[in-house]
Amino acid sequence: MYLTMFDPSTRLAATTTLDTLETPCLILDADRMDRNITRLRNRLDGMGVSLRPHLKTAKSIDVARRVMSAPEGPATVSTLKEAEKFAADGVRDMIYAVGIAPAKLARVVELRSEGVDLVVVLDTLEQAQAVAAASRDAGMRIPAMIEIDCDGHRSGVVPADHAQLLEIGKILAAGAELRGVLTHAGDSYKGGGVAEQKRYAEAERLAVVDAGRLLRDAGLPCPVVSVGSTPTAHHAKDLTGVTEVRAGVFVFFDLVMAGIGICQVDDIALSVLATVIGHQREKGWIITDGGWMSLSRDRGTGKQAVDQGYGLVCDLEGNAYLDIIVADANQEHGIIAVRPGSDARLPDLAVGDRVRILPNHACATAAQHSVYHVVRGGSHAVETCWPRFGGW
Amino acid sequence: MYLTMFDPSTRLAATTTLDTLETPCLILDADRMDRNITRLRNRLDGMGVSLRPHLKTAKSIDVARRVMSAPEGPATVSTLKEAEKFAADGVRDMIYAVGIAPAKLARVVELRSEGVDLVVVLDTLEQAQAVAAASRDAGMRIPAMIEIDCDGHRSGVVPADHAQLLEIGKILAAGAELRGVLTHAGDSYKGGGVAEQKRYAEAERLAVVDAGRLLRDAGLPCPVVSVGSTPTAHHAKDLTGVTEVRAGVFVFFDLVMAGIGICQVDDIALSVLATVIGHQREKGWIITDGGWMSLSRDRGTGKQAVDQGYGLVCDLEGNAYLDIIVADANQEHGIIAVRPGSDARLPDLAVGDRVRILPNHACATAAQHSVYHVVRGGSHAVETCWPRFGGW
Repeated sequence: MYLTMFDPSTRLAATTTLDTLETPCLILDADRMDRNITRLRNRLDGMGVSLRPHLKTAKSIDVARRVMSAPEGPATVSTLKEAEKFAADGVRDMIYAVGIAPAKLARVVELRSEGVDLVVVLDTLEQAQAVAAASRDAGMRIPAMIEIDCDGHRSGVVPADHAQLLEIGKILAAGAELRGVLTHAGDSYKGGGVAEQKRYAEAERLAVVDAGRLLRDAGLPCPVVSVGSTPTAHHAKDLTGVTEVRAGVFVFFDLVMAGIGICQVDDIALSVLATVIGHQREKGWIITDGGWMSLSRDRGTGKQAVDQGYGLVCDLEGNAYLDIIVADANQEHGIIAVRPGSDARLPDLAVGDRVRILPNHACATAAQHSVYHVVRGGSHAVETCWPRFGGW
Repeated sequence: MYLTMFDPSTRLAATTTLDTLETPCLILDADRMDRNITRLRNRLDGMGVSLRPHLKTAKSIDVARRVMSAPEGPATVSTLKEAEKFAADGVRDMIYAVGIAPAKLARVVELRSEGVDLVVVLDTLEQAQAVAAASRDAGMRIPAMIEIDCDGHRSGVVPADHAQLLEIGKILAAGAELRGVLTHAGDSYKGGGVAEQKRYAEAERLAVVDAGRLLRDAGLPCPVVSVGSTPTAHHAKDLTGVTEVRAGVFVFFDLVMAGIGICQVDDIALSVLATVIGHQREKGWIITDGGWMSLSRDRGTGKQAVDQGYGLVCDLEGNAYLDIIVADANQEHGIIAVRPGSDARLPDLAVGDRVRILPNHACATAAQHSVYHVVRGGSHAVETCWPRFGGW
């Protein structure tokens, strides 16, 4: 409903660098991003499944163009606002991967009328009936996928509930379009090592492959069989029966993903640039202007083996300081300190010096900003700015 | 640097109600807000000190006009973006209450050149020297306040460090303008009951009153003596020697403030409107489209006696359901459940039904949105929309 727009009076100066940007702000290392995209694309190409990237992480047309295999998609979105923004940029093949609220079907119909193959997701009879009713009213068959709950994490039809699955399938096939089945192994974010991740991936695969078979055995169509989470996408050994993989955070990675071994710390493409504004030397604190408003309130590593506080501190070239974290944060203040239990030395940073802070959770941190400042490798030069949007 | 703008094509229809708004979105009960403002204003009027409201909570010109005692201020801000936006609306008296980074002084000088009495805050010699240098370069005396660390919470000169306080004071008085002293009792958010809050308030007062006396005894000026936090503002018994009180979250209140007894749950003016999109009945879960993107990742009640999860669930009129909380949240999914240990019954909510969710932390939740939808009391009618902004 509301647009976040670039202010055209403040376009990037040719000489903008990490030393001159206003802080705090969001930095994107495009070299790291490109490497992350290539890594997953190569992996899935080798397994014969297509990648349907989840654009909720970046919410940026510029990133979307780089992460999608073609300008028309496929892609996954988490809001209708994303669907509308990406459709306006030419994306034509999207799944809106959050259970559809009946009142949102009017916007779905509008996008489909414009030639966008937007697919909805659902797991209840009420939603299937609403999609069928909206299809009848609009004179078009709205495609829907049935969400399967592969791990008890969130939404979806429980795999054992064959009756529910078939009944939803019949309503969709009769009154709308049954496009397929979809699941998300949300529990894979808990980690547990490579063997455990392979088990998550196989459970994710089996949940939808079995559901698809059940539908087909009942004479119902199920052309699309969709799985997706960054950890399982990187660990699945076998994707037989799966037609596509959705993943989002792989494009940037973050400390939560590094904490469960899906990436290395120096794969993380996103950081927040902050300026030192003071010290509490007797406490071993460096105070910066990078508080939770710029880092987000996400404390996703708080339950992991290594708690990164509100983020891991790097120098301006993006190299992490050993055991130096944002130990606490207020709205516009970050408190940098040595990680508890470490005998690392606090870096010698004066008032006015700058650091880059790696995020716990890329989706949450990026959402606090309206623009990516794009750098490459260890360079301080800001190549360009890519706007991002929020809202619903 | 970047503006969040209303999309003029989607202005509010006259018939917009809580039943027709796109979800998730932010709701502001203006009756509750007005009551909260009146409560603190009356209290401080009775104590003979002025209120300098912190506008970082609302980041809205419409709310600012209602919470300030006059269109010109005084006010407090947490970013230069706030200072610039409010200055453009006529606010002329502001403290930027985050330690100044030397590189930000150019924007301070620009605003002061336009007739805005913008005051900076600092606690180091380096910052005082930078303010003096910028004053010399700009041919104007930039006013600065010295931050005092009343409770070891964050920034500020330690009260016992008289030498540091006097040296900063001398640099400012000689080369800039020493406007006064300022502190923030951040520890008061921990609660502890009325007697404890009165102790926090008295410690906050003494820290700045003593610092002011030290400066004056050394022949230095100290016209402004500023304290501020919502809990201490509501509990201070004596404010002798204090000239002004800063407070921010009192305007909306939130579950953290209710949890430490500063307000009642039905004083909370802010909520997130969300739609039911599914159930996991055997688990006792209702799934909504109100995930952490709309609620924020703030889990501020997690350390309180009553953990409210990601928020407390209310009906559309704003009445809280007994012991029904958002127990967990993903980016665009909220999981509503009965609070652990309670024998309350889950409300009977169908797919498409709507709820309002009270936030843990108003500043963090409001920051996830670009507009307030204003209602009054239990009415479903949306009176108007007030845009809000973010960024730095």
